[in-house]
Amino acid sequence: MKKKAAPPYFGAAYYPEAWPLEQVDEDIALMKKAGMNVMRVAEFAWSRMEPQEGSYDFDWLHTVVDKLGKAGIAAIMCTPTATPPAWLTSRYPEVLFVDENGVPNQHGARRHVCSNSPVYRGHCGRIVTALAREFGRDPNVIGWQIDNELYPHSGRGCCCPVCLRMFHDAMRARFGTIEALNAAWCNRLWSQDYTSFAELPVPRSSAGHHPSLLTAWMRFQSDSYAAFCSHQAGILHRLTVKQPVGTDMMPGMGLSYHDIHRSLDLVQYNHYCSMDSLWEAPFWMDICRPIKPAPFWNTETSTCWNGGGAANGYRESGFCRANSWLPFALGGEANLYWLWRAHRAGQELMHGSVVSSAGRPLHIFDEVREVAAGLRKAGPFLNGTRPVNTGLAIHYSCLAWWLFTFQPIVKSFSYHGSLVRSVWRPLVEKQYRPDLIDAAADLAPYRLVLSPFLPALDEAGLRGRLLDWIRAGGAWVAGPFTDIRDTEATKFPHGPYGSMEEWAGVRVRYEIPGDPRTFGLRFSDGAETQGSLWFDSYELAGGRALALYTEGPMKGLAAAVERKIGKGRIILLGTQLPPAAYLDLFAGIAAKAGVKPVAEADPNLLVVPREGPAGRGRVVVETGNRKASLKIERPVINLLTGRRHVDVLNLPPCGVAVLKEVRS
Amino acid sequence: MKKKAAPPYFGAAYYPEAWPLEQVDEDIALMKKAGMNVMRVAEFAWSRMEPQEGSYDFDWLHTVVDKLGKAGIAAIMCTPTATPPAWLTSRYPEVLFVDENGVPNQHGARRHVCSNSPVYRGHCGRIVTALAREFGRDPNVIGWQIDNELYPHSGRGCCCPVCLRMFHDAMRARFGTIEALNAAWCNRLWSQDYTSFAELPVPRSSAGHHPSLLTAWMRFQSDSYAAFCSHQAGILHRLTVKQPVGTDMMPGMGLSYHDIHRSLDLVQYNHYCSMDSLWEAPFWMDICRPIKPAPFWNTETSTCWNGGGAANGYRESGFCRANSWLPFALGGEANLYWLWRAHRAGQELMHGSVVSSAGRPLHIFDEVREVAAGLRKAGPFLNGTRPVNTGLAIHYSCLAWWLFTFQPIVKSFSYHGSLVRSVWRPLVEKQYRPDLIDAAADLAPYRLVLSPFLPALDEAGLRGRLLDWIRAGGAWVAGPFTDIRDTEATKFPHGPYGSMEEWAGVRVRYEIPGDPRTFGLRFSDGAETQGSLWFDSYELAGGRALALYTEGPMKGLAAAVERKIGKGRIILLGTQLPPAAYLDLFAGIAAKAGVKPVAEADPNLLVVPREGPAGRGRVVVETGNRKASLKIERPVINLLTGRRHVDVLNLPPCGVAVLKEVRS
Amino acid sequence: MKKKAAPPYFGAAYYPEAWPLEQVDEDIALMKKAGMNVMRVAEFAWSRMEPQEGSYDFDWLHTVVDKLGKAGIAAIMCTPTATPPAWLTSRYPEVLFVDENGVPNQHGARRHVCSNSPVYRGHCGRIVTALAREFGRDPNVIGWQIDNELYPHSGRGCCCPVCLRMFHDAMRARFGTIEALNAAWCNRLWSQDYTSFAELPVPRSSAGHHPSLLTAWMRFQSDSYAAFCSHQAGILHRLTVKQPVGTDMMPGMGLSYHDIHRSLDLVQYNHYCSMDSLWEAPFWMDICRPIKPAPFWNTETSTCWNGGGAANGYRESGFCRANSWLPFALGGEANLYWLWRAHRAGQELMHGSVVSSAGRPLHIFDEVREVAAGLRKAGPFLNGTRPVNTGLAIHYSCLAWWLFTFQPIVKSFSYHGSLVRSVWRPLVEKQYRPDLIDAAADLAPYRLVLSPFLPALDEAGLRGRLLDWIRAGGAWVAGPFTDIRDTEATKFPHGPYGSMEEWAGVRVRYEIPGDPRTFGLRFSDGAETQGSLWFDSYELAGGRALALYTEGPMKGLAAAVERKIGKGRIILLGTQLPPAAYLDLFAGIAAKAGVKPVAEADPNLLVVPREGPAGRGRVVVETGNRKASLKIERPVINLLTGRRHVDVLNLPPCGVAVLKEVRS
Repeated sequence: MKKKAAPPYFGAAYYPEAWPLEQVDEDIALMKKAGMNVMRVAEFAWSRMEPQEGSYDFDWLHTVVDKLGKAGIAAIMCTPTATPPAWLTSRYPEVLFVDENGVPNQHGARRHVCSNSPVYRGHCGRIVTALAREFGRDPNVIGWQIDNELYPHSGRGCCCPVCLRMFHDAMRARFGTIEALNAAWCNRLWSQDYTSFAELPVPRSSAGHHPSLLTAWMRFQSDSYAAFCSHQAGILHRLTVKQPVGTDMMPGMGLSYHDIHRSLDLVQYNHYCSMDSLWEAPFWMDICRPIKPAPFWNTETSTCWNGGGAANGYRESGFCRANSWLPFALGGEANLYWLWRAHRAGQELMHGSVVSSAGRPLHIFDEVREVAAGLRKAGPFLNGTRPVNTGLAIHYSCLAWWLFTFQPIVKSFSYHGSLVRSVWRPLVEKQYRPDLIDAAADLAPYRLVLSPFLPALDEAGLRGRLLDWIRAGGAWVAGPFTDIRDTEATKFPHGPYGSMEEWAGVRVRYEIPGDPRTFGLRFSDGAETQGSLWFDSYELAGGRALALYTEGPMKGLAAAVERKIGKGRIILLGTQLPPAAYLDLFAGIAAKAGVKPVAEADPNLLVVPREGPAGRGRVVVETGNRKASLKIERPVINLLTGRRHVDVLNLPPCGVAVLKEVRS
Repeated sequence: MKKKAAPPYFGAAYYPEAWPLEQVDEDIALMKKAGMNVMRVAEFAWSRMEPQEGSYDFDWLHTVVDKLGKAGIAAIMCTPTATPPAWLTSRYPEVLFVDENGVPNQHGARRHVCSNSPVYRGHCGRIVTALAREFGRDPNVIGWQIDNELYPHSGRGCCCPVCLRMFHDAMRARFGTIEALNAAWCNRLWSQDYTSFAELPVPRSSAGHHPSLLTAWMRFQSDSYAAFCSHQAGILHRLTVKQPVGTDMMPGMGLSYHDIHRSLDLVQYNHYCSMDSLWEAPFWMDICRPIKPAPFWNTETSTCWNGGGAANGYRESGFCRANSWLPFALGGEANLYWLWRAHRAGQELMHGSVVSSAGRPLHIFDEVREVAAGLRKAGPFLNGTRPVNTGLAIHYSCLAWWLFTFQPIVKSFSYHGSLVRSVWRPLVEKQYRPDLIDAAADLAPYRLVLSPFLPALDEAGLRGRLLDWIRAGGAWVAGPFTDIRDTEATKFPHGPYGSMEEWAGVRVRYEIPGDPRTFGLRFSDGAETQGSLWFDSYELAGGRALALYTEGPMKGLAAAVERKIGKGRIILLGTQLPPAAYLDLFAGIAAKAGVKPVAEADPNLLVVPREGPAGRGRVVVETGNRKASLKIERPVINLLTGRRHVDVLNLPPCGVAVLKEVRS
Repeated sequence: MKKKAAPPYFGAAYYPEAWPLEQVDEDIALMKKAGMNVMRVAEFAWSRMEPQEGSYDFDWLHTVVDKLGKAGIAAIMCTPTATPPAWLTSRYPEVLFVDENGVPNQHGARRHVCSNSPVYRGHCGRIVTALAREFGRDPNVIGWQIDNELYPHSGRGCCCPVCLRMFHDAMRARFGTIEALNAAWCNRLWSQDYTSFAELPVPRSSAGHHPSLLTAWMRFQSDSYAAFCSHQAGILHRLTVKQPVGTDMMPGMGLSYHDIHRSLDLVQYNHYCSMDSLWEAPFWMDICRPIKPAPFWNTETSTCWNGGGAANGYRESGFCRANSWLPFALGGEANLYWLWRAHRAGQELMHGSVVSSAGRPLHIFDEVREVAAGLRKAGPFLNGTRPVNTGLAIHYSCLAWWLFTFQPIVKSFSYHGSLVRSVWRPLVEKQYRPDLIDAAADLAPYRLVLSPFLPALDEAGLRGRLLDWIRAGGAWVAGPFTDIRDTEATKFPHGPYGSMEEWAGVRVRYEIPGDPRTFGLRFSDGAETQGSLWFDSYELAGGRALALYTEGPMKGLAAAVERKIGKGRIILLGTQLPPAAYLDLFAGIAAKAGVKPVAEADPNLLVVPREGPAGRGRVVVETGNRKASLKIERPVINLLTGRRHVDVLNLPPCGVAVLKEVRS
């Protein structure tokens, strides 16, 4: 047997259940040629594992895992619960996912089942237990993946009678009495008061339902998926030996990434960014990194194009290289493509892969081999360092997602889009390196926290923790749209904010929507700009104006305010600034907070400083398919080329470098 | 107690049921500051009035009405039937509105009930009776509003079994035998004949149903709402003392505004025009004014933006002033904003208001106060005069709405849009002041009537009345699309028109659709223009050509024809003229009919002449957010400023003037 | 009685059932004036023929047919099964078409019934039998039309329990065991394996179903309609005397035109091309012509505009002439307008016609008469000649239609659109005259066959027949997207193609999607161009490169290859060429194969060479509403004008000529 696979992990998703077993050797030979050392297996193979109820067959899977192991290729073992066999849904139709209109899903796709169904949970328990018993001690299995891409895949999630009853129970547990719920949601408007929890309906999209009901329903959906995942994690933790457990999905999508990971050991992350959106891929990894102490795994990404029945978005040469390196730069230790061998049938047979359905290497095969070779060279440095925490964090909240979904505040405001484009991107292009954190995250590791568009400060007790953190020296930038709702999606009765008037020493005079126009403002240094999206305007009551409006009904009132609180500060923005103005303002705040850019480099260059037992250095990835350069402050060696660099590093489009500091 | 509130009424919608009762005093203090003298109350407060079936609580409402009254603020009392409580729909689910696909609506929005349901009607009867007994003699209640915005709020209105059976009954009552219905609709086409009334289906939109069936169904829906309203009006008229009864809704929307007002005392009108569409607001008021002898009430309009979960369309400074004055100019005696205090929760919490949910005056508060002050100054003049009837009317028919919905004749023709843009707007911008009248309206008050796009002259016996009116001296402008259908939405078998060939002394040679092109025509004075939309072309048989086509298969045939009938005239248009050409033609016709513009003024200026015991004068409102000027023929005093004007009045954007003629 | 009607047939659809019988004489007088000699009757008149179950009335229809016959106007008798009467669907609701969501259609439109329903089939059998007994020997009936426009008119066709069970039976008949089906569709992916045929679902569009299931389902729908049609054809063939039987529909639409015509005697074709799409009308007729030995009938086309509730697309003068002549040019012997007299009610009352609902000739009446006169002059030549087969065919496959519907391969690829625009149109504009043939068609009549976008060569045993035909001397142009799937919509396991690597002597190196970009290639003669859509690139293994890629990962690999096989050749294209480059390549291939353009003429001119006992000549129709000219090689006489032409023929926009060769 070859030596056991170790990080960095590099591989793909492998579906041997769909091919003759004899083909495994050919596949493995190609995998070796590609330089891979890990495969995700069994993801959707329930019907192969359990062709009939209670009758299991894992021999084929042992064969595959063993052959992989002999070749030095580790396995990530997946629970196949995303695709229950036909016999299951046929014999137990009550397990089917039911849409908001009461229509059950059909066999023939994925996740067509209700995560709350006790019958389905029972079957999941059986298959996961059997699988864990088979592979829980297999030395070639380096980890587990639960299910696949768990999120409410139709508008309202599953709406079956089980779910509705559990929602009623959840509301009863939350509020105690229906009167308390009515009061919390101000249900007297439109005579919406309920007289019992049992009257709460599935909030169908055909009706104009109460945003508090909608928010509560979707929060319940998120909780349901977290519980579903936790159930399997419990079994796997009980029956396996030290194999870390995760679930592969994307952050966002209205499922609390923070909650679902409570029961898991590491983050498994799927993404399908294109060349044009590669600049955005680090956003998601900035979310994945701080969730767990363990490095995250990039479990799925595309080699060269996406596709179901149609190929979709050919990626230019170089994409595969840059994209494959991103997780290793940003705190991950694995990158796996979807998929190894293209499907020869079914719903995704046009998706890009490493080798074709006929086993022919695709045009990116050389790029894949180049990445593999680079990982071998840089492996010790990567394994022996971690990305440096720069003290900067931005809040990204699942509750905010839902609140803005049902109350966008201004027509066409997009929580995710605005946060990415008007906050994260300007900072990252100036080489600030933030973490993206949930409202529940500990603030201690950070000196500067940005909470734009964070409507509910009471989520996870943030309000109190935040104030303590500020008093202890934290710098907090809030607004617009921060602290404007309680956790039940309603306004505060006493004022536009929960606490921010008091904290920032202001009184909100006018609140004006930015639809359809912008208004001007002027900073204390005389710089002029235009706000957009929304306009809260402030009379000062202790705070210090950073900018005043120069137009509109709020002319002369403050648009941005700063105030010291204890050892820390709050900076309150009443409007959304254009990126350049935002950066100007931010640079001063960051400097005071001791938060600095990690490099001088072109904006299309991702630069990640790393430190650890293996030394200090930076991983650098070009994400815009253009040339880029980086100023070198201290002599470095590029571990991929062996070359030394001083002064400046020039990279070609999609270029990658792993720079380790060396004595000059 | 302060003196009783009197017109002009100025106020807002007030929802004290959603707030602590203690807050009423604070609200009233602000209302007084705003200069208001009326509040609409109880609109959706059924669950507060009747928390459990049969158990009433009106104490809170008495408290509110009494406190308002003490402050000199009158109440408009609303029946809360648009929002039945959860206990009602939960215990009697058969009352729920059922959509065309058979799916019942859910609790949690508004008007989710079937207006025809006898069970729901019974409950409505109970709550309205109880409310009327409580407040029917309350001196501070100046009027009643029934329900809220009654119209078929889903595509086909309610389609429950009760409605379907009542539709069958209505068709039986209309036709007597199924054979008569089959003949009237020419059902032999496609073997569509029915063998019994019970076979008539709910015409679902998923099928390509017969336009006569669709028209009949929607007419039935309109009748149902009128009957629903009439039921409550009967109770209120029986149990209250001289308090006028109305229902607040918009004209149009496929519900016969004329029919529903038969049982009512005054028109209550809601609108949410923006700055960009403010020029169109008078169109709707030109409909409201002639319906009833009593001045109409503008029951809902926006102060500064609309909004549900998102604010929508910030209005520039001045909008609130101009918009608030329009109803007073055009024959109303009330303007109420929606809403007084912004909601703090629920589906509309982002809607603009007078004060915020936290009780802070919005930026328009000063404009509101300015309007209030103006109304106090101009009140005696407004109360003592009425808009002058200029002898000009335009037909606007609910039946036409449905006919063109199901038979647009030409792709993308919009009845409402074309009537507003190609007929009403050009005239109004030239300072003609029309009434918009239903087919059932009396023609006697008018000298010139325009009936463009009026397909069914047999509606409400108009054909005969119209001819009599023409013979007696009326001037009638018809076409295009006039007199082309019977009331069952079918063509006349003998020719393209019912009577107009005979009346106008023409024979239609060719009928040509204006999709996709226009054709030229030339007027007798040599002016050339392009018709559009449709092209009826005429051979003359007694009529006199006003214009001939110069292109296409109809080249040389008449495009417009005039003919004297008795003391009057018919002018028949075969095509739609561009606004300028239409105006040129119209000016001559109007002059002969003794119909004159009411002013020389910029097109963005609404000028409404008024006369009465309080004198003569004009109310002037700028609606385009641009400067405007008006020629002054006789010396006037602007009651808002106290200034005298001769020669010319210049107004700023959104400016308003109330000009009373004075001796020079 | 006048002499019996003979081809060319010229007429319209006639619906006397919707009018007083007395009107027939007036209609006939107008038909004679229009020069017509045939009417389609009874198409939707089931309720008139059988007002109550089992009680028939054909007297009115005899009256009509007899009166027509006396006037020399033949009848095409239609079975009225597209519109079952209300009593039928009311008494037997199980016959209703059920959509994919389980919702039954309603009475009031057309084809709202399940073609597989045994109850409905029984009623169809009764009415068709009764009708055939009445008119099967009527000398004035020249043919029969079965039903009307048969195709799955909702997304998935009828999905009622009968259909689902028959689908299960069809799959059992096709595969024998469920294991065989699972293997053929590779159902192990996503655990999609079924354990019994009964588990196969109606593949609703709300789920992301397996493309093999979707393809099989729609193929079953096509088979169902063919069987429905065959049932009626059997009755008519049994009970009538030599009257040819067809069904009027459009090719395409996902129904196998080839299959449905197996039981029929001639093709009846409906189309509603506009002036802008008139160039495309010959495409469909190139499909219709080769299906049956008998000339096809153009059973429906528009005179001047289409329309349901709205008129749609006024056609310019000349359209009616050019459009009416196309079928006669291209191998048909009949042109009938839809419709004779405009409807006066119902869903299509705005559709263009020959006379209005009031019986007034439309503006195209003179054009109609001109066509009639021309047909009388050219009749003997048309009847005595047939279009010349030029040896060129293009495959057009219903299976391909479905395969690409469910696997478009590249986003937004349209099978029909690409085949028409990138293959058929360039050739036709260069005056090549192809047949469009089904995969099942005999290849013997052709020397050159193009099979672009023909994914499944195993359809109808084409693979073997094709190779035999090539070996015997045929020239075959394949790709892109040819031979890439088996008939179950899955890929071949051994390579990208079934046989084409072997046949063409190539090995596919890379397969690259053309989304979002193009790549350059260079032909052996140095000409450069850009491929699009898709890029298969070849290493040579016996084939000869015609072009090499100059860009991208496939730079230097072959893009087009030629290879001799026996006496014939295969030309394989790896990418889609722009029209000009395609034509350049094609011209050489065609010349070698002895396939020549039929004329030198402007691209907007359709030129159809004809030969037969009546001589030689060409029918020429201008389809672009522009002037055009044709080179005259041999002296001709234009039968429409009597004029002789040498050297050149100039035609006005929409001009038509019937040129018969004469001795010089």
